[in-house]
Amino acid sequence: MKNSMSFTIDDHRFMARAISLAKKGHYTTSPNPRVGCVIVNNGKIVGEGFHQKAGEPHAEVYALRAAAKQAEGATAYVTLEPCSHFGRTPPCAKGLIEAKVSKVIAAMVDPNPKVAGSGLNMLNEAGIETASGLLETDAKLLNLGFISLMERKRPYVRCKLAASIDGQTAMASGESQWITSSKARQDVQRLRAQSCAVISGASSVISDNAKMTVRQAELGSLNKQYSESEIRQPVRIIVDSQDRLTPDLALFEHPSSIIIVNTGIETRHQWPHFVKHIQVKAQNNKVDLASLLSVLAELGLNDVLIETGETLAGAFIEQNLVDELIIYQAPKLMGAENKGLVKMPAITQLSQAKSFKFKEVTMVGDDLKIVANLEESH
Amino acid sequence: MKNSMSFTIDDHRFMARAISLAKKGHYTTSPNPRVGCVIVNNGKIVGEGFHQKAGEPHAEVYALRAAAKQAEGATAYVTLEPCSHFGRTPPCAKGLIEAKVSKVIAAMVDPNPKVAGSGLNMLNEAGIETASGLLETDAKLLNLGFISLMERKRPYVRCKLAASIDGQTAMASGESQWITSSKARQDVQRLRAQSCAVISGASSVISDNAKMTVRQAELGSLNKQYSESEIRQPVRIIVDSQDRLTPDLALFEHPSSIIIVNTGIETRHQWPHFVKHIQVKAQNNKVDLASLLSVLAELGLNDVLIETGETLAGAFIEQNLVDELIIYQAPKLMGAENKGLVKMPAITQLSQAKSFKFKEVTMVGDDLKIVANLEESH
Repeated sequence: MKNSMSFTIDDHRFMARAISLAKKGHYTTSPNPRVGCVIVNNGKIVGEGFHQKAGEPHAEVYALRAAAKQAEGATAYVTLEPCSHFGRTPPCAKGLIEAKVSKVIAAMVDPNPKVAGSGLNMLNEAGIETASGLLETDAKLLNLGFISLMERKRPYVRCKLAASIDGQTAMASGESQWITSSKARQDVQRLRAQSCAVISGASSVISDNAKMTVRQAELGSLNKQYSESEIRQPVRIIVDSQDRLTPDLALFEHPSSIIIVNTGIETRHQWPHFVKHIQVKAQNNKVDLASLLSVLAELGLNDVLIETGETLAGAFIEQNLVDELIIYQAPKLMGAENKGLVKMPAITQLSQAKSFKFKEVTMVGDDLKIVANLEESH
Repeated sequence: MKNSMSFTIDDHRFMARAISLAKKGHYTTSPNPRVGCVIVNNGKIVGEGFHQKAGEPHAEVYALRAAAKQAEGATAYVTLEPCSHFGRTPPCAKGLIEAKVSKVIAAMVDPNPKVAGSGLNMLNEAGIETASGLLETDAKLLNLGFISLMERKRPYVRCKLAASIDGQTAMASGESQWITSSKARQDVQRLRAQSCAVISGASSVISDNAKMTVRQAELGSLNKQYSESEIRQPVRIIVDSQDRLTPDLALFEHPSSIIIVNTGIETRHQWPHFVKHIQVKAQNNKVDLASLLSVLAELGLNDVLIETGETLAGAFIEQNLVDELIIYQAPKLMGAENKGLVKMPAITQLSQAKSFKFKEVTMVGDDLKIVANLEESH
């Protein structure tokens, strides 16, 4: 297998196309990875495809079907190394061999260390030229959660916060829900829609009587793309060490999966069939958050969004468990007497502050959307 | 005078050049406006100039000197209507008439309502074709302070804040000076260097033992452009209702102008010659900030930068006296137990929050620089 072949401008162009195809599965493939495939014969695209949904065919299958006989002697560009194992579908490497492509270029190898390279090896052994690493950085961004699960055995964790410019989330009166604009709230709906799971705490859910679902009407431009029934609801994970949730909350109106997490307390209530309880070990009488993330990884939830109050969000951040902060900042100043953005133990030296790196800043309606990643040093 | 002539692409090009010339005076012209001038004969630039410093020739003078005889029959592009009065220098309109230019295009008329149009009128009466309004929006941005002084009889007020993403400026321990990066601090030095005056409060000055000067070594890329002696120091305005400042503070080491503002208290100290005291009327036993701004306007200070603690900054903001917020945000989370960004009376409804509009966001080193303007409705 060649890993360092020099890629041509055309190679870049076709892989960029494969990546943009993969993005079409942004809201639907979870927990599977987003993958795109382009088959090129004689400089022309003869087949394209992307993975749409768990249980449905992989990107390569669609592309090979479209290419039909023209796949013979062609080059296949795939954003992720073709699989070599039988899962819910037959291995894609086998399909490519049978279609007699002459070359396969993968943007990245399989992030699962146990199988990395085996798909390309299978192709190589069948006499097909292979290469990987083309637009790898871009390809990785498609599947941060999938890669995190494979490489770190824990989900990729995003934490959504919304505040005024001075970091206030609510007033003493509790009025808080509309600090940011409706466009920002639509964006949050899209964040939910792309996540495997959302995490919240019982007190936030109770005080906002939050549903934590993806609401089609609030998806903005996306609501034309997906019908109500096509929208995949993220699993709702609620941390409730004290059995404070009650079945009459709005949370339980929608019958999509809910996981209530505690440290072993008996629940006093009867729960609908879509509600599951799991126990996680305790730390200082609270749910141990690192253990919770391991459990979520075992459940195959690779991409989770924390949407909760300042205490639980602060605890995740304080333990360096948040990979990415997504902060919606409204162009307002509220004054310092109000509620803060996150609650963490008081620090006495600036070096104890949690350090991030700004990754992306955009305007969403009148608000700023700031994305920042945890600094590697943690 | 024609105001609505349609400008050509060349007109736009030459005025854009005049605007970029005007910007060369960004750090030096204050309290005078930044002005650029381009003289074009037969489609070619035959003379250029910009105003460099109060007391030195206006932009038109430099451009006419360079053009010499080629000014005859030429078009002059000026970012601000040429003056028609004798100030420290003879009127520029007169110079343009004597040089026999055939046309003058101004980006904007004089913002002083009492003289607006008189320069163009003088030219017109001498048979010179005139027009105005070309790239006016861009030209106005050159001189927000000058325009504010003319139109509103108060300075354009910027307020600089620096905080973590969660709006914290310091820890309980008081450690605060280095929340943002050295690049951000250099940017603040450039903000100071372009301002007529900086405003602070006695308690901030005392607790930081702040000098409030522009330090050449900290100007970043600018320090190659200007020598120590060429740097114009902003007037340092310190609000000190309680006579808390003492002459031994670092503030008084540099002999550039300092104005100490109080409501009439007698000072107990002897002060150096560059320190002046002014009295402003009181409001709730404190300096009335709107009156202070009027006094600064009378002193010709058109562009002021507030760099102070959360109480005085909060008071300016609360009274809608801040036109522009400049917030340096470090990619850090500190937790909510610390000091807030601004201190304002508690609000009970979100509609009472101060509303701004984001204008510009850039990266400065590892930090975000967010510029926001007060919403017009105030």
